[in-house]
Amino acid sequence: MKERPARVRWEQRTQRPLFVLAFAFAVAYAVPIVWPDASRDVERLCTTVEWTVWGAFALDYVIRLLLAERPAEFVRTHWLDLCAVLLPLIQPLRLLRLVSTLLLVGQRARVASQIRLTTYVGGSVVGLLMFGSLAVLSVERNSPNGNIKTLGDAVWWSFTTMTTVGYGDHAPTTGLGRMLAVGLMLSGIALLGVVTANIAAWFIARFEKDDVEERRQTAAIAELTREVRALRAEVAALSPPVRDEVEEQRH
Amino acid sequence: MKERPARVRWEQRTQRPLFVLAFAFAVAYAVPIVWPDASRDVERLCTTVEWTVWGAFALDYVIRLLLAERPAEFVRTHWLDLCAVLLPLIQPLRLLRLVSTLLLVGQRARVASQIRLTTYVGGSVVGLLMFGSLAVLSVERNSPNGNIKTLGDAVWWSFTTMTTVGYGDHAPTTGLGRMLAVGLMLSGIALLGVVTANIAAWFIARFEKDDVEERRQTAAIAELTREVRALRAEVAALSPPVRDEVEEQRH
Amino acid sequence: MKERPARVRWEQRTQRPLFVLAFAFAVAYAVPIVWPDASRDVERLCTTVEWTVWGAFALDYVIRLLLAERPAEFVRTHWLDLCAVLLPLIQPLRLLRLVSTLLLVGQRARVASQIRLTTYVGGSVVGLLMFGSLAVLSVERNSPNGNIKTLGDAVWWSFTTMTTVGYGDHAPTTGLGRMLAVGLMLSGIALLGVVTANIAAWFIARFEKDDVEERRQTAAIAELTREVRALRAEVAALSPPVRDEVEEQRH
Amino acid sequence: MKERPARVRWEQRTQRPLFVLAFAFAVAYAVPIVWPDASRDVERLCTTVEWTVWGAFALDYVIRLLLAERPAEFVRTHWLDLCAVLLPLIQPLRLLRLVSTLLLVGQRARVASQIRLTTYVGGSVVGLLMFGSLAVLSVERNSPNGNIKTLGDAVWWSFTTMTTVGYGDHAPTTGLGRMLAVGLMLSGIALLGVVTANIAAWFIARFEKDDVEERRQTAAIAELTREVRALRAEVAALSPPVRDEVEEQRH
Repeated sequence: MKERPARVRWEQRTQRPLFVLAFAFAVAYAVPIVWPDASRDVERLCTTVEWTVWGAFALDYVIRLLLAERPAEFVRTHWLDLCAVLLPLIQPLRLLRLVSTLLLVGQRARVASQIRLTTYVGGSVVGLLMFGSLAVLSVERNSPNGNIKTLGDAVWWSFTTMTTVGYGDHAPTTGLGRMLAVGLMLSGIALLGVVTANIAAWFIARFEKDDVEERRQTAAIAELTREVRALRAEVAALSPPVRDEVEEQRH
Repeated sequence: MKERPARVRWEQRTQRPLFVLAFAFAVAYAVPIVWPDASRDVERLCTTVEWTVWGAFALDYVIRLLLAERPAEFVRTHWLDLCAVLLPLIQPLRLLRLVSTLLLVGQRARVASQIRLTTYVGGSVVGLLMFGSLAVLSVERNSPNGNIKTLGDAVWWSFTTMTTVGYGDHAPTTGLGRMLAVGLMLSGIALLGVVTANIAAWFIARFEKDDVEERRQTAAIAELTREVRALRAEVAALSPPVRDEVEEQRH
Repeated sequence: MKERPARVRWEQRTQRPLFVLAFAFAVAYAVPIVWPDASRDVERLCTTVEWTVWGAFALDYVIRLLLAERPAEFVRTHWLDLCAVLLPLIQPLRLLRLVSTLLLVGQRARVASQIRLTTYVGGSVVGLLMFGSLAVLSVERNSPNGNIKTLGDAVWWSFTTMTTVGYGDHAPTTGLGRMLAVGLMLSGIALLGVVTANIAAWFIARFEKDDVEERRQTAAIAELTREVRALRAEVAALSPPVRDEVEEQRH
Repeated sequence: MKERPARVRWEQRTQRPLFVLAFAFAVAYAVPIVWPDASRDVERLCTTVEWTVWGAFALDYVIRLLLAERPAEFVRTHWLDLCAVLLPLIQPLRLLRLVSTLLLVGQRARVASQIRLTTYVGGSVVGLLMFGSLAVLSVERNSPNGNIKTLGDAVWWSFTTMTTVGYGDHAPTTGLGRMLAVGLMLSGIALLGVVTANIAAWFIARFEKDDVEERRQTAAIAELTREVRALRAEVAALSPPVRDEVEEQRH
């Protein structure tokens, strides 16, 4: 892409401070939910931190847009970021601020080339677990028929949901809680499936025995490579004399 | 296939009107279930719309059959469509009309070459969710021991079933509801599995790091390609002088 | 294998009668469970049919053993059949007779070369569903805390278990019922997973769009094939003149 | 690796005695949980056996560390073993002793080259089932709201969890029990998934029909191999006369 120089340098330089802000957001989001009896001052502070972090990421989006060589293309390929920036302005709900900031953090994390896939997937799973639990807890705690009343229950529910075990000892009962649960299911099952598959691969890894078809295929390619190598050797053995001959005849 | 010209032109021209009819059917099916206190006139209108849409798709099948160059082969390869056309004539049940129309819409959607795989799978999942929820709701609502009494519960139940989470806070209790659930399970789990796998792939996509064996295999092919390319260069270097030589000797 | 002639002819000739016997067993096993108020005569008849079918399959095993050219090897590679033959002699329990006969039928079905994979997997799933439901029903019906009391509940439970949905509205409570459930889970989940994967593939099939990596790999091979084909054309263009030349020089 | 000789000989010679000790640990861990009314002497004996087995594995780690040619590298690549050795010294809890010894046994089992993948995965699944059940039982039995009170319930719960069926008829209610459950879920689902996939493969194995794409790919490689083989034959047919010619011309 042509826009590399300026934008990429900005993205690399702002990576660490934005990560620190993301962590601050996580704390500011968790505190009023985990500690519901907090004083009004603490609550106000947390809200301020949330708005600040969202603002910093929104500003980061605007700066990246200005630094982009083709702004129209940047807006088109980053429409999800734009939505995340605009959403809390239209509806200043706490939940929308959470989703927006998570989206902006996720989009930025994907840009950071130093982050490895394992870290990204692991971080997403932990983030989904944590924010999914907290959001469902804050929604369900006040529901009269709700059964997710403590943080422990919420985390346990997230875990049994993302592994698709689904005991049903805890389940959201409100419409909003269920919408959050559907989001958590779709993304959480997908990502925790990747984690589980990696754990299975880790158990198996040191045995270096792949499944039959895979092996057969690799064997086919290996056989083919041997074949071509032999062919090449033959052609190599064939070519120099011919050239000599040609040269001899030319002189 | 030889039958392309006439039939394919018909299929392309009727695509949009049939899609509009399919949408009308969705509305006509949903209204009396979501709004059970609707007046008799509304109910009668909905039934008329349902029969009309089914009729249009049945007519479409007949016309495609007449336009087909080999009608016998068309009937054999589209036996599912034939069943869907005949079923509501034998048993004019609402549920059979739903299944028939869904089948006919699905078969036609697959023919439409403009529809992409993502749209098709996504549309099928949304359709299964919506019609599965509505059908189970209409069946379970009147069951004395049933626990699926509102549309929200029905959609939530569909979701927890298709993701195989299965909390068990809501589950069909009647024989017909369970038969619908089995159909939803088999097709829904299969399709939502595709969606979840795609979400996982989307998360991972931008990292372009594949699992080990895949990489090893691609590497093997790449190595082989280099090998062959080198061989070809050698042969290319070898061949012109030989030809020259041959030509020289011929003169 | 050397034992083909005699044994294989026997296996092909007995295939149909044994299939009929397997069907008779299914009926004889189901009747007393589905119809618990049946007269003693019906029950005695069913038991006789069960013993006869098991006996026929046991006899089939003995005849195949006698027809085998290397009996020792046959016993070693068919130890599961031997267990299935001997088990009901040691413990004449109804459940053991069921497991034994199912094993013998399954082993014979795998030998029959006319049966296609889809039929085999589908038949196994239906068989596991049916016999799993019946066996769990017969065990759980008499349990005081049991919640699987009707055939409908048993089939529904089998289905929600094999799809891993597991609502928990019905679950075995006795030790024997749970052991049956574990067997059903391990084999049923494995097989119904194959069925679900096939349904997903059937939905996707007509679009012929594979996932990215698969396509990239196939593309790599295709590119390589083009490369090699070009090389071959070059070599082919190269070789005849050389031969001519050689022949010319020899003359 | 350079450290082979001394360390590998030690590992091979100690394999069997350590396996016997691992079995003794399993018994010593199970007895006080399965038989809660055991006399104090039995309990004290079991604790002694547990400590002895852990000590033996810790000693094994120290000896392997001393035998390693590069101790620093050995510590770095076996940091999990080091944790497992040190943990019970810091916190002499029974549960930590279990996790530590399991980790040490698992790490040693992976080193043993005689153990095949199937045995390793199968052993891990059985081990996870058994120790997971016992640990959760010992934690949940004393919980007032707990519903896992007997060994049968615990094993049944482990099974429904590891298959992700999750009926919810039994589920841990204490924080410690849930943490154990999360560990069991992540590792158990991963490993039992491997087992289920193998069962499915075993059902399908004798039919030797692979899925379409796999076959198409192998076919592509096979076609390519044929192509290359033909090419090689051509080149082979081409090369000897040329050499003869060259030799003739040189003389």
